[in-house]
Amino acid sequence: MRKKVRDRGIVIGTLPVGSKNCLTDVMGVRVGHVTLDEELSQDGAYACTGVTAILPHGGNLFQHKVIASSYILNGFGKTTGLVQVNELGVLESPIMLTNTFGVPAVTQGALRYMLDTNAAIGDSTGTINIVVGECNDSYLNTIRACPVTPEHAIEAIHIASEGVAAEGAVGAGKGMICFGYKGGIGSSSRIVTVEPEAVNYTVGCLVLSNFGHSTEFLADRYQIMSVQSEATLAPTDGSIIIVLATDAPLSSRQLNRVIKRCGIGLGRTGSHFSHGSGDIVIGFTTAHQIPHTSKQHLETRTQLREDHPVMNQLFTAAAEATEEAILNSLSQAQTTTGRNGHVVEAYHFAEK
Amino acid sequence: MRKKVRDRGIVIGTLPVGSKNCLTDVMGVRVGHVTLDEELSQDGAYACTGVTAILPHGGNLFQHKVIASSYILNGFGKTTGLVQVNELGVLESPIMLTNTFGVPAVTQGALRYMLDTNAAIGDSTGTINIVVGECNDSYLNTIRACPVTPEHAIEAIHIASEGVAAEGAVGAGKGMICFGYKGGIGSSSRIVTVEPEAVNYTVGCLVLSNFGHSTEFLADRYQIMSVQSEATLAPTDGSIIIVLATDAPLSSRQLNRVIKRCGIGLGRTGSHFSHGSGDIVIGFTTAHQIPHTSKQHLETRTQLREDHPVMNQLFTAAAEATEEAILNSLSQAQTTTGRNGHVVEAYHFAEK
Amino acid sequence: MRKKVRDRGIVIGTLPVGSKNCLTDVMGVRVGHVTLDEELSQDGAYACTGVTAILPHGGNLFQHKVIASSYILNGFGKTTGLVQVNELGVLESPIMLTNTFGVPAVTQGALRYMLDTNAAIGDSTGTINIVVGECNDSYLNTIRACPVTPEHAIEAIHIASEGVAAEGAVGAGKGMICFGYKGGIGSSSRIVTVEPEAVNYTVGCLVLSNFGHSTEFLADRYQIMSVQSEATLAPTDGSIIIVLATDAPLSSRQLNRVIKRCGIGLGRTGSHFSHGSGDIVIGFTTAHQIPHTSKQHLETRTQLREDHPVMNQLFTAAAEATEEAILNSLSQAQTTTGRNGHVVEAYHFAEK
Amino acid sequence: MRKKVRDRGIVIGTLPVGSKNCLTDVMGVRVGHVTLDEELSQDGAYACTGVTAILPHGGNLFQHKVIASSYILNGFGKTTGLVQVNELGVLESPIMLTNTFGVPAVTQGALRYMLDTNAAIGDSTGTINIVVGECNDSYLNTIRACPVTPEHAIEAIHIASEGVAAEGAVGAGKGMICFGYKGGIGSSSRIVTVEPEAVNYTVGCLVLSNFGHSTEFLADRYQIMSVQSEATLAPTDGSIIIVLATDAPLSSRQLNRVIKRCGIGLGRTGSHFSHGSGDIVIGFTTAHQIPHTSKQHLETRTQLREDHPVMNQLFTAAAEATEEAILNSLSQAQTTTGRNGHVVEAYHFAEK
Repeated sequence: MRKKVRDRGIVIGTLPVGSKNCLTDVMGVRVGHVTLDEELSQDGAYACTGVTAILPHGGNLFQHKVIASSYILNGFGKTTGLVQVNELGVLESPIMLTNTFGVPAVTQGALRYMLDTNAAIGDSTGTINIVVGECNDSYLNTIRACPVTPEHAIEAIHIASEGVAAEGAVGAGKGMICFGYKGGIGSSSRIVTVEPEAVNYTVGCLVLSNFGHSTEFLADRYQIMSVQSEATLAPTDGSIIIVLATDAPLSSRQLNRVIKRCGIGLGRTGSHFSHGSGDIVIGFTTAHQIPHTSKQHLETRTQLREDHPVMNQLFTAAAEATEEAILNSLSQAQTTTGRNGHVVEAYHFAEK
Repeated sequence: MRKKVRDRGIVIGTLPVGSKNCLTDVMGVRVGHVTLDEELSQDGAYACTGVTAILPHGGNLFQHKVIASSYILNGFGKTTGLVQVNELGVLESPIMLTNTFGVPAVTQGALRYMLDTNAAIGDSTGTINIVVGECNDSYLNTIRACPVTPEHAIEAIHIASEGVAAEGAVGAGKGMICFGYKGGIGSSSRIVTVEPEAVNYTVGCLVLSNFGHSTEFLADRYQIMSVQSEATLAPTDGSIIIVLATDAPLSSRQLNRVIKRCGIGLGRTGSHFSHGSGDIVIGFTTAHQIPHTSKQHLETRTQLREDHPVMNQLFTAAAEATEEAILNSLSQAQTTTGRNGHVVEAYHFAEK
Repeated sequence: MRKKVRDRGIVIGTLPVGSKNCLTDVMGVRVGHVTLDEELSQDGAYACTGVTAILPHGGNLFQHKVIASSYILNGFGKTTGLVQVNELGVLESPIMLTNTFGVPAVTQGALRYMLDTNAAIGDSTGTINIVVGECNDSYLNTIRACPVTPEHAIEAIHIASEGVAAEGAVGAGKGMICFGYKGGIGSSSRIVTVEPEAVNYTVGCLVLSNFGHSTEFLADRYQIMSVQSEATLAPTDGSIIIVLATDAPLSSRQLNRVIKRCGIGLGRTGSHFSHGSGDIVIGFTTAHQIPHTSKQHLETRTQLREDHPVMNQLFTAAAEATEEAILNSLSQAQTTTGRNGHVVEAYHFAEK
Repeated sequence: MRKKVRDRGIVIGTLPVGSKNCLTDVMGVRVGHVTLDEELSQDGAYACTGVTAILPHGGNLFQHKVIASSYILNGFGKTTGLVQVNELGVLESPIMLTNTFGVPAVTQGALRYMLDTNAAIGDSTGTINIVVGECNDSYLNTIRACPVTPEHAIEAIHIASEGVAAEGAVGAGKGMICFGYKGGIGSSSRIVTVEPEAVNYTVGCLVLSNFGHSTEFLADRYQIMSVQSEATLAPTDGSIIIVLATDAPLSSRQLNRVIKRCGIGLGRTGSHFSHGSGDIVIGFTTAHQIPHTSKQHLETRTQLREDHPVMNQLFTAAAEATEEAILNSLSQAQTTTGRNGHVVEAYHFAEK
């Protein structure tokens, strides 16, 4: 049975983890997965893919936006919606994850959901910006068949919950490959503490891992790991989408500084942000909700003093949670069979 | 009858224009429009929108990429595909234009076209990056009904031609509003000359204009204009997508410098890149075609010496062609009726 | 006698100007000039240059930082200090302006001033970031002789005052050339008003103008101008440094959006941001003072709602004030003789 | 006696190293150090600092520029010259390293050197852009006394040689602290090979290390290390300047992608790019020399096909060389005494 690396005795970094060791440790954040796993034809076409929805909170995301930022570690990717996130520093939709060619359908579905729940959009108010990240799962999934539909996206939003998010070969992670083994969804979290006030902030991370060659994996760092299963020679460089959530009060500029450190965690696993990899980080904080409209011309925001030691703790948390989330994606994923009978093995962890 | 501003005696700048005064003066570039203009229901819903396809050349765009770059003047927009364009400096698909909520359908259509003409994509080679720009035409178009389909996008690609591109209320420009008057598609071009070699390079510009309040328009600069028609009070800040093409040999960094100057032409018309405006420039050069695969590890590229005076000429050409393209979008557009009986008047130009 | 263009009947834009029509209309902002104008040797070497200091407020700038941002219109320039301004979004020193090769001496002088007034810097606390902008005045000034000293910088800081800043061939503007005529320091301001609250915010702009060929100048836009003096053929592309100050409460991201619009004003005068030009904008807001140290880990900031119409007014103000400041630099500058007997004529304005 | 970590049995990564395991393995690159180590007064003031000069080649750097790029990992730093490097993609001066408050003097010195060797600069041609990186050595060095002079910079340029660069507490590294132990200058290199052509390219890295708390150091990764000496509690967050050189033919955009990966190596040592750290990478390639002037309007450049596997090798090389260069800075540095009797211990490596 699959489990998190921490349950295998692998401890990443020094900061304490949240109670679920998951993105959803950040209060209010919800995750929903829809997984496709079906033969499409008798000549090998197979839907081995899915959709993952991440909701910053359970309310109306367009009416109550959250502060957000994105950072491109390597831009060989088709993520949509980042132009506006970076101009305005807010997120007003779920963050959706899927396969590369599923982006249009998932954008359409998330758009439909937002239109259905906001009659004013595109009528008496402006439009809405949808954020969709992607990785290429074409080794296991018949990506050219575009099996993901708008309805899958809507369903993933509907079923999103605050519980522990499923990890591994699930949702958008169904067909993903990490360091030649089965990857996909992984998550972890960290708690930072302001002393002596004893104020806690949570940092959660969820990754869609689909990168790396087996020779790059720095498995020696995680000493109880043992490679006995056979790695797949990934046909392309893959990608990783990293979603970071926090409840720390940060401006979009500060948040950008924090999410930039996710690349440290990615690098520590062995990645070199390969040429063909879309390595993209999207972050948000739930500390404020920004109303879509207001009669005031001013708004007041609380944010961290950047020279306070907690800022460096947040940097550390981002790196640690990313690294552990990637390992969890490997640790939780099951051996998977997909298109043309391709099999990607689960990574074998030797038990202590 | 509508015509270009130059035929009205308005001359922008000092550089000579190409024979068509159009984006398609850049050899090989093709433009195709599909226009939707139909009642959707008896309660006022109306499809007043469309799709415009711009092809850098008539060959296989995935197999023969062109050098490209993008620049964000103001990022309140939903353009997709720019992350990869800026990482790699190449374009491997048509540039598609449509309304804001048409982006997923148009992406899907362009993707389908590229998959159908490239069996290897997503199978034996990597994926493909589709670029789609948009403006919000919701005053005239029932944007929530999402009337644009993938088939419209495919058709726009199929019918793209090297002729003079139609301008005004056509293609993606069908429902757009510029300075409170009917805007949409406009185009212009410039020729720069290297002396004493007498080498000519062409700069073409095509805009999708949908920005500005009537009070902002610096009509005084274009002295024969006279405002007699009534301006629409645009409900939102609108947007403009600017596409610049050239045959000058430029690196993606150099091209980025050139397209940055399109904002000068935009500003000269009166725009202040409003808060709610997605003002985005996408540029490419046809000087080189970069093959998708190669057995060589090296490639040789010719590029301009940046300190040569022709570089400044290209900057001037970008500004002039953008300004004139915007004016042409006003000058060519016809009074248009759309959703809920809304009417947007054509701008009235007094004749000399 | 020289005067501002507004006193010549030239009105730029529609927004009201501040009482001084100067950067110093933003409460607390101070400007100081030190001008060098002396023969250095009998073979033509001449110091025709200077230093200008801009202080966001009259207090200790290191102890009470202001929110700031910078934007590169064209980066052929040697401005120093922008890396940290953009990372942290604060300014903790005066903004200094000088000639290109005066940057080290002026940095040294401003550093010395800040060390002398802050015993803790570099001892019990961290270091300090000095911001210095520059243009190349080598046609009139023997720039290779580096006549500017640290003491000149210190003096410019000491004498900075809240009065109307001198314009034209003064301070760092002493040797600068704009559109082939004598340029240098120019300033202007705008007032924006939030209705119905009747809250006013001020935008001030000061430029160091040193750009443009005479053929680029869009003098026709300013109809009472008449070129009767002879333009200098500038040997290089020149540069412009634009400093924008406001008292509107803005985050550094918002401020960056505002200062980006200064390029619109620059473009409207005729500039195409030439290849060899260092066209750089530095902005700050005096709305908050950020203390260097604090026992709190949180801070509260007031900022504008970006969708409020006042944001677009600020964009317009930035463009208008920049355009008028550039014209003022021409309008106020006197014919100047410098190195090797070079003469740069003042621009001749025909009176109404 | 101090030595490189490879001589202690620590091997970083998998790629082969160059013959000197040094930045100067890239043909033509030169390094020069000037070290200051003297009491300034009897009350504890001490010059424990220096200057390091890196020359891309032995010729006239202004007349024969090299392609360059920079990347900001964390921008709490005062490095000068990067605006123009990133606009134009070229370097036309030595890269100078020193302490934070030494930047003006070192800029002045490098400028003087370039003026003395190029009579046309600032006279009959344009100006020159000087690049100077810095870290804060104020624990060991009386930085407020500004002991570095322009002459030190000129001397460092003059004595630069192609030999193995000295490492540790030398040149700009004299007063630097890394992970609480004595750091400073470190260097390493990697060789990548294009198969089957058997073409080799070299990547060299030199760091000025001054970052990290002892608790962050991931010493466990380097298993023969053993902490027996006492760490200094660094008073501030410190910084690191990373210089990467290569002879691989890369465009400035490609080079930017390569140097971005230096952050991976930095992160693997344990750094989280602390808030107060100026973590900056500057890279150049010697593959082309770009002449300052040319009669041609075109130039031809050879560059790598980015999809060739050698691109990923270069990414790996940048990460590996950076990590090893940092370790070498620790491994080579000697225990150092400076200002106010402060002592920073050398890191103790247990021998195999």
